[in-house]
Amino acid sequence: MPRPELLETFDNPYSDRDYEIHMDCSEFTSLCPMGGIESDAEELALLKGGAPDFGTIRITYTPAAKCVELKSLKLYLWSFRNDGIFYERAVNRIVPKSGASVAPKWMRVVGDFNVRGGIKSVITATHGSHRA
Amino acid sequence: MPRPELLETFDNPYSDRDYEIHMDCSEFTSLCPMGGIESDAEELALLKGGAPDFGTIRITYTPAAKCVELKSLKLYLWSFRNDGIFYERAVNRIVPKSGASVAPKWMRVVGDFNVRGGIKSVITATHGSHRA
Amino acid sequence: MPRPELLETFDNPYSDRDYEIHMDCSEFTSLCPMGGIESDAEELALLKGGAPDFGTIRITYTPAAKCVELKSLKLYLWSFRNDGIFYERAVNRIVPKSGASVAPKWMRVVGDFNVRGGIKSVITATHGSHRA
Amino acid sequence: MPRPELLETFDNPYSDRDYEIHMDCSEFTSLCPMGGIESDAEELALLKGGAPDFGTIRITYTPAAKCVELKSLKLYLWSFRNDGIFYERAVNRIVPKSGASVAPKWMRVVGDFNVRGGIKSVITATHGSHRA
Amino acid sequence: MPRPELLETFDNPYSDRDYEIHMDCSEFTSLCPMGGIESDAEELALLKGGAPDFGTIRITYTPAAKCVELKSLKLYLWSFRNDGIFYERAVNRIVPKSGASVAPKWMRVVGDFNVRGGIKSVITATHGSHRA
Amino acid sequence: MPRPELLETFDNPYSDRDYEIHMDCSEFTSLCPMGGIESDAEELALLKGGAPDFGTIRITYTPAAKCVELKSLKLYLWSFRNDGIFYERAVNRIVPKSGASVAPKWMRVVGDFNVRGGIKSVITATHGSHRA
Amino acid sequence: MPRPELLETFDNPYSDRDYEIHMDCSEFTSLCPMGGIESDAEELALLKGGAPDFGTIRITYTPAAKCVELKSLKLYLWSFRNDGIFYERAVNRIVPKSGASVAPKWMRVVGDFNVRGGIKSVITATHGSHRA
Amino acid sequence: MPRPELLETFDNPYSDRDYEIHMDCSEFTSLCPMGGIESDAEELALLKGGAPDFGTIRITYTPAAKCVELKSLKLYLWSFRNDGIFYERAVNRIVPKSGASVAPKWMRVVGDFNVRGGIKSVITATHGSHRA
Amino acid sequence: MPRPELLETFDNPYSDRDYEIHMDCSEFTSLCPMGGIESDAEELALLKGGAPDFGTIRITYTPAAKCVELKSLKLYLWSFRNDGIFYERAVNRIVPKSGASVAPKWMRVVGDFNVRGGIKSVITATHGSHRA
Amino acid sequence: MPRPELLETFDNPYSDRDYEIHMDCSEFTSLCPMGGIESDAEELALLKGGAPDFGTIRITYTPAAKCVELKSLKLYLWSFRNDGIFYERAVNRIVPKSGASVAPKWMRVVGDFNVRGGIKSVITATHGSHRA
Repeated sequence: MPRPELLETFDNPYSDRDYEIHMDCSEFTSLCPMGGIESDAEELALLKGGAPDFGTIRITYTPAAKCVELKSLKLYLWSFRNDGIFYERAVNRIVPKSGASVAPKWMRVVGDFNVRGGIKSVITATHGSHRA
Repeated sequence: MPRPELLETFDNPYSDRDYEIHMDCSEFTSLCPMGGIESDAEELALLKGGAPDFGTIRITYTPAAKCVELKSLKLYLWSFRNDGIFYERAVNRIVPKSGASVAPKWMRVVGDFNVRGGIKSVITATHGSHRA
Repeated sequence: MPRPELLETFDNPYSDRDYEIHMDCSEFTSLCPMGGIESDAEELALLKGGAPDFGTIRITYTPAAKCVELKSLKLYLWSFRNDGIFYERAVNRIVPKSGASVAPKWMRVVGDFNVRGGIKSVITATHGSHRA
Repeated sequence: MPRPELLETFDNPYSDRDYEIHMDCSEFTSLCPMGGIESDAEELALLKGGAPDFGTIRITYTPAAKCVELKSLKLYLWSFRNDGIFYERAVNRIVPKSGASVAPKWMRVVGDFNVRGGIKSVITATHGSHRA
Repeated sequence: MPRPELLETFDNPYSDRDYEIHMDCSEFTSLCPMGGIESDAEELALLKGGAPDFGTIRITYTPAAKCVELKSLKLYLWSFRNDGIFYERAVNRIVPKSGASVAPKWMRVVGDFNVRGGIKSVITATHGSHRA
Repeated sequence: MPRPELLETFDNPYSDRDYEIHMDCSEFTSLCPMGGIESDAEELALLKGGAPDFGTIRITYTPAAKCVELKSLKLYLWSFRNDGIFYERAVNRIVPKSGASVAPKWMRVVGDFNVRGGIKSVITATHGSHRA
Repeated sequence: MPRPELLETFDNPYSDRDYEIHMDCSEFTSLCPMGGIESDAEELALLKGGAPDFGTIRITYTPAAKCVELKSLKLYLWSFRNDGIFYERAVNRIVPKSGASVAPKWMRVVGDFNVRGGIKSVITATHGSHRA
Repeated sequence: MPRPELLETFDNPYSDRDYEIHMDCSEFTSLCPMGGIESDAEELALLKGGAPDFGTIRITYTPAAKCVELKSLKLYLWSFRNDGIFYERAVNRIVPKSGASVAPKWMRVVGDFNVRGGIKSVITATHGSHRA
Repeated sequence: MPRPELLETFDNPYSDRDYEIHMDCSEFTSLCPMGGIESDAEELALLKGGAPDFGTIRITYTPAAKCVELKSLKLYLWSFRNDGIFYERAVNRIVPKSGASVAPKWMRVVGDFNVRGGIKSVITATHGSHRA
Repeated sequence: MPRPELLETFDNPYSDRDYEIHMDCSEFTSLCPMGGIESDAEELALLKGGAPDFGTIRITYTPAAKCVELKSLKLYLWSFRNDGIFYERAVNRIVPKSGASVAPKWMRVVGDFNVRGGIKSVITATHGSHRA
């Protein structure tokens, strides 16, 4: 299962100023819980019931008191590798809940997934209001 | 004929939050009811009266209670393959009517069609107001 | 001479909704009435007094009661082929006058012309106010 | 079924010289007889037992006595639209047999097909030896 | 009619050395004598019986005693503008015959024409053997 | 462990002719047995001792009696997902040994791997001699 | 010295309408009065005290009573060729002063200069307020 | 240590007008104080405790009384080469403090850093409000 | 006039091995002695009788005893700036004569010039035989 | 100084077969011993007498008994960071001498360096004969 407890933070060194951090993770992979739209049951048995999905996760945020530690983010994204999760859930789960330790002033998470069945999917979820 | 009844939905797992789903279907094909601007009658007899059109359908929406099921969308778009329909109608028909089962908070459908007679056509229709 | 009478229209099938039609015509050619900035008199005698210009015409509009028929647009643009016209005039002439049969809610015409004398020209004219 | 009888030829106007003709047909579509690697049975019923394949057919040849008539080639490629055929067969079938009416000095046919199941396929078949 | 008599030459200033001259003419246009594969009779009446073709002519050669004068080449290519000619003939005609005033050691002419009926055509004709 | 027994073949429908089949699998992923050059021990515990590698596998071959079945190739490549293997071994293992059931006339396998430690690696192994 | 007196104008043929003219001049060159950040004194003696700068000048404006004549603009930009001028001054000088003969409703001039010392510079100056 | 005292300024020659200066420095390199997310201790000893980071620094500003001298900016950016600094600090440090000698009306600094651990980082900090 | 005496050389540090040096000079400019094919006499008076030409000079060679010093090459290419020279002559002149101080084992010089009159020219001259 | 002793090797796991390994290192940086062609003495004092050079090192080889260990290659390339070395020497030094521990069957090293003084340099050195 995705393991959000892997995420670590550090104190924002410029917390008196609004600035933006963007992180592009082009090696995201998970499994589709229903085998997606491209695989039959025989295939799915191979990977414990899920066909592999691939995509890029793009995270942009304005830090408040804390910044996301880059190495821990890498490990958190690795933890999706062998569990089944739908696109919509994967993206919305990465957006922090109110009161979370990261708690940015604003955050946008984009999941840009590879073509499946001739269709490309991009999911965009946002927390808070953007501050240009 | 295009068969909208093929479309299926599932419950929006994050219905308390506005987020955006984008789907890019680059393998859309239909027939032009008048043979388009490139074919004469002899040719059109081959495909029951229509010259093939090709394009990409781009759908972006903010789900309300329901999300569009990806596999059913693929089948719905396949159902345009052997029937004649004008560009303007194809795009406007994909936009859901008020009261439809999908009924998104906002939806934009773009039909980006291949060059015909040296002219490329892009049709854009929208339902509701965009929520950034 | 350019022959606007070649343009034909058809009834907008979705006149109760604002949507946008974009047409990209990348094979536009006309003659420059003064030989442009690259040719001397001897050359111009070859083509009846004008050096050839090439470019792309991009038309975007929101239809009102009528839509532009695609095949007739192709013929109208062909009719510029052997007559001399300046860039500014060509683009502004394609924009419909108030009261014209097409009469869109909004229209933008862009003429994107090839390099002449090391300079590329792009002319943009608009009719009415854009409706996003 | 693909209908090779639609192909027409015309006399090569420069038959005393070796030259090369290349034709790129980016709107090829057929059906996969087994539903390809992405579809289940329920889906395939929609299109008479085959999932749609898309790709580009690239033909290059040195004409002998005859050239392929361009319009008839378009119709021949259209005739694959609603029948099931595997990639390998589609490409090899387009290559003319010895003694065919076209009978070029040399011909190469490339089928460059869209991604299916995360895998892109390109098939290349040749008739005779290339003449640079 | 194309007017080869417009071509002028000048003495090759380095005739003791083999070197290569390449010229890319991206604004070539002519008319198709049969209306191509995209137009009906009514349309063709507009341009005296031919639909416009567009493309790039690429000429590469190793000069012998004479070089092609650039400005005269421009005028020669302009002279195809309002006459009907098939792709194969246009390219083969630009290749000089043995004994012509230009008479290069080697020449290749490529006609790279825009998409018509969903098919792009490229014709390549050569005179003499390439000297690397 | 990679499971070559998943690979299936079918009879080459054109075994009397040399032709080429190319397959591009851009969603290959495996684990690096030593954690690659980017990860420390703590991280590797997360994925059973290996950091994830990503890349594209490109296979080109001239079939003899048998062709590789596309769906089974997908499953075979999936089977690398959760085992550690070095780049050099992964690519060389996919190349069939003499006497294997696939036994093509010629085969080239390219592993084009993502950047690690600022260095991109591409491994190319070949079986037999290329037949143009 | 740059010679603004070379600029000529002609009457705006559509002065009752706001439209936009864009001109891209990718062959701009001048000399840097201090040798820029890349050259020593010995080098600069070669070109009368200045190292060559290269860039693209992009001009966009909405004409009022007058339009800029394209050929005269070419000559005006040529006149910077052999005189030393800093980036900031070159761009700001091209923007017309209030009361100048061109006097557009709005104008933006962008100088997009080549890399010097590993740094690319782009200067943007504007006259008046943009009218979409 | 980064040496801001290397930065020099010159008087803005057009201080009565708002205009924008953009500088793209694609050869920025520094060391990561913790070895980033890709290196172990043995490696870091080689470069005095830090793994090299690479990126592009993009600076855009509207000058007030002073402009940044281009050559001194190059030297200032060179001075980051052999000292350890985190991405967030590097970018925020380049943004001038209130009361600094440069003191622009508005400035944005973007640090666009190369992929580390499969993740690309872009940091954007701004001083003052943008003036279009 | 172009000043070949500006070129300097240094001893090839690896003269016992064949290796290749390539230099791409994208900021080459000269004047056309006849005003090229785009300018009339009035214009040419501005720049002492020649319209400016722009292009890229690409030099590739295998050094023998001497290498070309990079800074002196820059100055040599600058020395073409204000003199008239035809494309063919400029490229052939840069190729060293037998017995010249540079005297490489092999050299190729390519002049890739900007579009004039809708035609792009590329001239390629070679000295000696290539050693792969 | 560059430290070749950092390079480590491992036993070629497929030494009975010729295959090719390519490594692209796009983050190479060194110092120019003479300040390159872009910097004066004052600047060079900042970095101990050398201006920074940047480029990509591309290494391709066919291993014999040993393969280059990827992590040790990264460290070896890092060791060029703070020492002055000319382009030609850097590339030729990376090519192994006869009898070196790596001793590939064939190796090509390409140094593709960033623009300096408007000139891009690419150096290519080879050891042994290529085996396709």
